[in-house]
Amino acid sequence: MTNLPKSYLTHLECPECGRRFDADQVQTYCPDCRSPLMARYDLARLRGDATREQFGQRPRGMWRWAELLPVRDPRYRLTLGEGDTPLLPLARTGAALGMDALFVKDEALNPTGSFKARGLCAAVSRALELGVREFVIPTAGNAGGALAAYAGRAGAPAHIYMPADTPRANQIEVQAAGADLHLVNGLINDAAREAGAEAAARGWFDVSTFKEPYRCEGKKTMGLELAEAFGWRLPDVILYPTGGGTGLVGMWKAFAELEALGWIGSQRPRMVSVQADGCAPIVRAFQQGAPRAEAWQNAHTLASGLRVPAVFADRQVLQALRESNGTALAVSDEDITAAQSELARGEGIFAAPEGAATLAGLHQLRQSGWIAAHETVVLFNTGSGLKYI
Amino acid sequence: MTNLPKSYLTHLECPECGRRFDADQVQTYCPDCRSPLMARYDLARLRGDATREQFGQRPRGMWRWAELLPVRDPRYRLTLGEGDTPLLPLARTGAALGMDALFVKDEALNPTGSFKARGLCAAVSRALELGVREFVIPTAGNAGGALAAYAGRAGAPAHIYMPADTPRANQIEVQAAGADLHLVNGLINDAAREAGAEAAARGWFDVSTFKEPYRCEGKKTMGLELAEAFGWRLPDVILYPTGGGTGLVGMWKAFAELEALGWIGSQRPRMVSVQADGCAPIVRAFQQGAPRAEAWQNAHTLASGLRVPAVFADRQVLQALRESNGTALAVSDEDITAAQSELARGEGIFAAPEGAATLAGLHQLRQSGWIAAHETVVLFNTGSGLKYI
Ligand SMILES: [Zn+2]
Ligand SMILES: [Zn+2]
Repeated sequence: MTNLPKSYLTHLECPECGRRFDADQVQTYCPDCRSPLMARYDLARLRGDATREQFGQRPRGMWRWAELLPVRDPRYRLTLGEGDTPLLPLARTGAALGMDALFVKDEALNPTGSFKARGLCAAVSRALELGVREFVIPTAGNAGGALAAYAGRAGAPAHIYMPADTPRANQIEVQAAGADLHLVNGLINDAAREAGAEAAARGWFDVSTFKEPYRCEGKKTMGLELAEAFGWRLPDVILYPTGGGTGLVGMWKAFAELEALGWIGSQRPRMVSVQADGCAPIVRAFQQGAPRAEAWQNAHTLASGLRVPAVFADRQVLQALRESNGTALAVSDEDITAAQSELARGEGIFAAPEGAATLAGLHQLRQSGWIAAHETVVLFNTGSGLKYI
Repeated sequence: MTNLPKSYLTHLECPECGRRFDADQVQTYCPDCRSPLMARYDLARLRGDATREQFGQRPRGMWRWAELLPVRDPRYRLTLGEGDTPLLPLARTGAALGMDALFVKDEALNPTGSFKARGLCAAVSRALELGVREFVIPTAGNAGGALAAYAGRAGAPAHIYMPADTPRANQIEVQAAGADLHLVNGLINDAAREAGAEAAARGWFDVSTFKEPYRCEGKKTMGLELAEAFGWRLPDVILYPTGGGTGLVGMWKAFAELEALGWIGSQRPRMVSVQADGCAPIVRAFQQGAPRAEAWQNAHTLASGLRVPAVFADRQVLQALRESNGTALAVSDEDITAAQSELARGEGIFAAPEGAATLAGLHQLRQSGWIAAHETVVLFNTGSGLKYI
């Protein structure tokens, strides 16, 4: 165990007011700003200790980036095989769109069939290391399955609150793992209210999106993998389906850390949030030039993971979109369904509706000319279509 | 493209009569013996050209073993990210069974959520290279989904014949990929009859288990990965859920090739076939000391992938079990369900019933003392439990 890599985590920081928090205590979010906390690492020291090439020599999986992840003791690094998902060229889809270099990062090949595995893997591992024993989460679906799996892996109890109309697969995977499933009438925000009340009353640790600092760190590894896969030169555009926005904020943070390490330059992808037109709080705020996103009323879309009316990390999401010269756009459920079929029939990829939404968004951005033919573009498929049957 | 590794494929061979077949023509099976054909490689030359360590330096996925796979032109190597699945320690389950070193190879983290991706990836890629344009398969479920995906990836038509009571997820993934789905009253052997008749009438290429030589080569990579993961010393026991037996035969072949290359020694795992007690043709033949397995009457089990009454490669499966000093055993549907729950609750792994069957089998073999406490044991989870909802 002694030669396993060490975490370079130093502290937590509120990106709004700059206040520092002790990373070796259980933390939630900044009480003054109601902002997520960001994990900070001793990047200057890591720059001297490591080369970017060494990460590729390690066994596959998210934990090969352990220096840039928060868990100090390797025995707490839970694994179900998360990370190192394939980056697949979409040659035929790209050609049809007149593009040279179109890719999908296929997060369906994670444990529990979705990208949520990365975030919950990091969060549960770190929370257990800090002494947490019992977990609670409100979820649009996949995050609940991921929490149930990692809590099951660790032998820790987990309580999952999800809308009653969440796809059956999400409910079944939670129950199979022996977690405590609560179906809630309403949306994820209603589930969050119930979960939060129980958490406070019973002392369960709430791993809601961005209400603890480490799911973002797990999701960050998507950005690390992209940088490595493209030979430490980032793609021109990333299209990301945005519910809570952890992956988008996580990747943006990953790129900043990689530049501080000297492993990439200052070039950045234009980050694009794709939302459903029945629930597009980030798109509306982006278009209005607003710094924050108001909650969306009467949210509805078949892409259950995009049914997130109130985005806790709205400031960070909007900031990443703007700093990157990116954009945000909404697509219809009809366009999502058509794109899902296009990916399955044309490429053999049975994507989640959230993942298919990025292809629908790409159609819009090619039509408007916002994405040029020669640009390198990555779509994120966040999960398997099998979970939405 | 020029520095991508080349295939060392030389010819095909009938393991029963020794007859050689041209590997650069489309082939099926030995017409004299009705035996599968085995791909042969110039291992002596590869031994001089390569080291075992170099494979670990390549990008993840099955094609990093290209020298030992049949596709010559890299442009025909289809990929959806298959292979390099995690080998996960089962610490808590192992401890409960009094074992030191219990692992699961989690094949659910393949495209289409099952181990079938490896075989169909290799078979479809090679068939297209040899000029095949249209595919047909009879399937217990997951192989149909995998064929549909790889055919979709290549833009080739595929016709899938499956029992009408196959899990809905298998039916939906086939239709999503735009393949032609035929539901058949009966079992996989009935589906095979219909598929075979259509194949003959219409000139479709039949990628049934072992009726072409290359699905086995894709599955073989599971054995290559195991050898590498254990530092080129194989585990003591492998428990494998056996329907058609491609993976078991493929791994056994992999080990022979690795020894011929000088990359492993002569030590071999004891290979264990686990079947369902409602369909156990291999177990019956093994116990009777028979060289072939008769078709099982009235096959029934909830593990649809084990519902394979007639095993085309029965000779090769039984030979691997015997040469390895292995065994074969049947488990009940009740034990499968209990083991599925044990894996999900205890380890966070929501396994397919076929995968869970191997844990049920392990319970038997620990109880009888056939597996000792200190032995290194690998269970194969062949797919995701999400596909059986
Ligand atoms: Zn603050
Ligand atoms: Zn023969």
